[in-house]
Amino acid sequence: MTVYKLTYFNFPALAEPIRFLLSYLEIDFEDVRFEGEQWPLIKPTMPFGRVPILEIDGKILNQSVAITRYLSKKAGLAGSDDWESLLMDIAVDNVNDLRQAISLTAFEPNEEVKAKKYITLINETIPLYMNKFEKTVEENDGYFVNGKLSWADLHFVAILDFLNFMAKVDILEGRPKLQEHKKKIWEIPQIKSWIAKRPSFAKSL
Amino acid sequence: MTVYKLTYFNFPALAEPIRFLLSYLEIDFEDVRFEGEQWPLIKPTMPFGRVPILEIDGKILNQSVAITRYLSKKAGLAGSDDWESLLMDIAVDNVNDLRQAISLTAFEPNEEVKAKKYITLINETIPLYMNKFEKTVEENDGYFVNGKLSWADLHFVAILDFLNFMAKVDILEGRPKLQEHKKKIWEIPQIKSWIAKRPSFAKSL
Repeated sequence: MTVYKLTYFNFPALAEPIRFLLSYLEIDFEDVRFEGEQWPLIKPTMPFGRVPILEIDGKILNQSVAITRYLSKKAGLAGSDDWESLLMDIAVDNVNDLRQAISLTAFEPNEEVKAKKYITLINETIPLYMNKFEKTVEENDGYFVNGKLSWADLHFVAILDFLNFMAKVDILEGRPKLQEHKKKIWEIPQIKSWIAKRPSFAKSL
Repeated sequence: MTVYKLTYFNFPALAEPIRFLLSYLEIDFEDVRFEGEQWPLIKPTMPFGRVPILEIDGKILNQSVAITRYLSKKAGLAGSDDWESLLMDIAVDNVNDLRQAISLTAFEPNEEVKAKKYITLINETIPLYMNKFEKTVEENDGYFVNGKLSWADLHFVAILDFLNFMAKVDILEGRPKLQEHKKKIWEIPQIKSWIAKRPSFAKSL
């Protein structure tokens, strides 16, 4: 039996899309979580000093999005042809652009610069991206791409808590289609079961 | 006949992997280039205010990496199975992590912070990534993945000028395997022909 071992901090963030996909596939995996104070010791042992990594039968893989795409193919959630796969890749990368913008604000070390960035983030960047995503989901029968469940949906919902945490706002507020979308993803039996058993977000951040 | 229209600034950077792939595929494309002073007018008309975009028969696509992957599939350069595709996706994303690190230094607005970031970039980040890439290419018979030409190779060489420009150093210096790798990619007939006819880098930056 193939052995899956995921290594990440003890919170959802970048590892959660992988955990969602492994759960969706009903694959048992070792969910190795470490605390922040352990990171300096672990960092030098990781490829390019970053996490998450997923080990599949001992083969070490980095890059969370690439790993999530790979698992999505196994799950039949990565498109039925190259064009549809492209649209899903675009949707995921658009969400990651938003994540990067939020993250560059949240982790800005200079408080004055951070305050300025935060104003732009809240007034411009988040509305720009989130209003587009709301419209996309409205126009695609409740999903990100082509009216069908894909890894673009699972990826977005999996990192949503992290986005909200970093942005210090609920980015779904006032966006009913995306709220329904999240609810629908959470109702997928394997995801529901994962969410019920994962370490709670409040506890882990 | 399918019409391809690429829109970007008048330099290689993020659009160049797309141009490499279209050239490799021997697809004629409209290479729409605009100057920096036109950007404020163009920006609001672009998806999420960003470029490059590629229009395929009028359908507007954003996200350069997703577009490059799609074209690579058409070219047979995106892996012969899901596992190989995963390794190529990881290789591309690792290069993009380096690009992001260089870019966050190059575009840092505070000069003092920029100087500090630059020291870390030159002494730590670039060696970390580039030494790994050098080793990867050495261990994979002169390519990034599995000893065969893939979009990971074309992507890296296509954005190399941009990386060097932003980093203000030749990141291939002292890395003979990667130097040979670049030479080999430049010798691919379609790439050679593209490089001969594209606007010169010196002129365009």
